[in-house]
Amino acid sequence: MTQQPLVDFWFEFASTYSYPAAARIGRLAQARGVALRWRPFLLGPVFKQNGWTTSPFNLYPVKGRYMWRDLERICGALDLPFAEPPQFPQNTILPARVALIAFDEGWGETFTNAIYRAQFGDKKNIGDQETVASVIRALGRDADDVMGRAQADDNKLRLRQQTDEAIAHGIFGAPSFVTADGELFWGNDRLDDALDWARAR
Amino acid sequence: MTQQPLVDFWFEFASTYSYPAAARIGRLAQARGVALRWRPFLLGPVFKQNGWTTSPFNLYPVKGRYMWRDLERICGALDLPFAEPPQFPQNTILPARVALIAFDEGWGETFTNAIYRAQFGDKKNIGDQETVASVIRALGRDADDVMGRAQADDNKLRLRQQTDEAIAHGIFGAPSFVTADGELFWGNDRLDDALDWARAR
Repeated sequence: MTQQPLVDFWFEFASTYSYPAAARIGRLAQARGVALRWRPFLLGPVFKQNGWTTSPFNLYPVKGRYMWRDLERICGALDLPFAEPPQFPQNTILPARVALIAFDEGWGETFTNAIYRAQFGDKKNIGDQETVASVIRALGRDADDVMGRAQADDNKLRLRQQTDEAIAHGIFGAPSFVTADGELFWGNDRLDDALDWARAR
Repeated sequence: MTQQPLVDFWFEFASTYSYPAAARIGRLAQARGVALRWRPFLLGPVFKQNGWTTSPFNLYPVKGRYMWRDLERICGALDLPFAEPPQFPQNTILPARVALIAFDEGWGETFTNAIYRAQFGDKKNIGDQETVASVIRALGRDADDVMGRAQADDNKLRLRQQTDEAIAHGIFGAPSFVTADGELFWGNDRLDDALDWARAR
């Protein structure tokens, strides 16, 4: 009996290139018979280690301008709605905490894509409690109940531990993909390579 | 009569991802009927604007380690020789100046690929005059004559102007590709997209 190949998909809700990656990865993994673990984490602590207090796309505006144009092209090719949000980067702690709960209960992928779309398609601020609540409600869930559990101490700790685990894997940006044999791939551009690597082993 | 589509290929000899891009671009452009202008430039002045005194791959070692592994995978898939050179980044002023002459005379692509291969395939230091001379000689050229003209004031100025032009285009890294309508694409991963963009217009 061979085991199904597995890829950990590490994403951060503030990461622009994680938006197209999250939209594509489910279908592409399924087509290859690769199992996925969706691993939300926070880039803030990673960036802090580099001495960055905000996104490198803000610290280096020339690169930032390019990124928004590049993202627009990528979303255009995928027919994904795109609009540069007024706030960037946004505070993603709440949606990341909710995502942990959502993946436990089987609605994580839908929630994740809806949060990305709210931010990078509909210019919403996903740091606002009401934005997150309305995404949860649109999925037919009880927003107060879910957010209450998301903000409980054990779940907060879980997100911190998951972020520590990302750093321990050598992850320095998002999206990142880690195969069962520990191979790291960084960026939406490496999604197919990561899945192919997992399948070939 | 329609004009042949044109792409400017901006590269820096110290740029790791420019190595596979330079190796691939000639064939890929020809297959699409896209004309190329090879534009060597220096990243040093660009990085200085960001406050960087060396490559970001050295400033952020976690990212650097990933880059070398990623480059090894990319070169492996292309059957390009790869070995991490002992010095990084190297002083690339001399080979960049020679490249300007070489492209004038029609042997630029061969020279460029040979320099990249010496550095990232054979672990040579392309900042050494003797390394550059031996590459030139291997192409059947008079190294003293070529390097003399490369180091002349007018050619030095040309490289500085070309670097200024890169910055004016919003170029912040290498390889970069700019189409005739001014669209910028950054990175070996965007090579195909840039050529397709040029052809579609």
